[in-house]
Amino acid sequence: MIIIGIDPGYAIVGYGVLDYTDNRFTTRAYGAITTPAGMLFERRLEIIYNDMVRIIQKYKPDAMSIEKLFFTNNKTTGIDVAQARGVILLAARQNNVAIYEYTPMQVKQSVVGYGKAIKAQVQEMTKSILKLESVPKPDDTADALAMAICHGHCSGSLMSRLK
Amino acid sequence: MIIIGIDPGYAIVGYGVLDYTDNRFTTRAYGAITTPAGMLFERRLEIIYNDMVRIIQKYKPDAMSIEKLFFTNNKTTGIDVAQARGVILLAARQNNVAIYEYTPMQVKQSVVGYGKAIKAQVQEMTKSILKLESVPKPDDTADALAMAICHGHCSGSLMSRLK
Repeated sequence: MIIIGIDPGYAIVGYGVLDYTDNRFTTRAYGAITTPAGMLFERRLEIIYNDMVRIIQKYKPDAMSIEKLFFTNNKTTGIDVAQARGVILLAARQNNVAIYEYTPMQVKQSVVGYGKAIKAQVQEMTKSILKLESVPKPDDTADALAMAICHGHCSGSLMSRLK
Repeated sequence: MIIIGIDPGYAIVGYGVLDYTDNRFTTRAYGAITTPAGMLFERRLEIIYNDMVRIIQKYKPDAMSIEKLFFTNNKTTGIDVAQARGVILLAARQNNVAIYEYTPMQVKQSVVGYGKAIKAQVQEMTKSILKLESVPKPDDTADALAMAICHGHCSGSLMSRLK
């Protein structure tokens, strides 16, 4: 199963593509879509959408694992992240990619085994699970890979339960 | 100038298309895109996007006038409205429609002449300005027409200032 993990945003969208077969992860690709501050917002949405479609059509994921949004502090930024997340979901839907949402706590639980793990622990475990030489940068990319690992673990245990 | 007014949402997206020429409005079309509760959210986004593209390509608006979002009470609903708004902005951008945002207070000020007008006053003035026989239903459609009137008035006064 090919999984694309996404850390949604409008300035930076982190992504990570993993192949999860026989309980093993193989890293296919990772990186970030970035859009410059000061650019017309709808143009930023268009870049995110176009790049997302390109990445999906290149790696053909079966599943997208994307962070569930909550609004807490910065409401204005939250609106723009949600608008960007909308065009990411659209790109996935149009290309028949099943979408799964996980909370940060679910990702930490799945990757580190502890729902209150700190970011550095999640990044170190991500590096270790994927046998990477260093923690990918920016953080959004590392977070996206952790999202993808989370879905691999969750779908694996789901399939075990269904046997 | 052809203006499409939008009241964004994910269950109901109100729209209204007006021609504003020589300080007069002519109503071209109005209605609502609706998506059923219980449908997969990304499928709802896809319907909104597809219908929006169809409406834009049919009426070829020069400008989209869309409500600015603020989050106050229901944060979860707010996230989903913002995600839907993202795909509406994308549809406009991809079809070269310039996008303008107005707050509810700006719309009330523009349509009724009083920023704290109640909804019924805005609806009655919208009906009167557009010489409609009755207030369009649902409210989202009436609100969308008011958004379009607001942009007509604002762009008119902007052009006057530029003379």
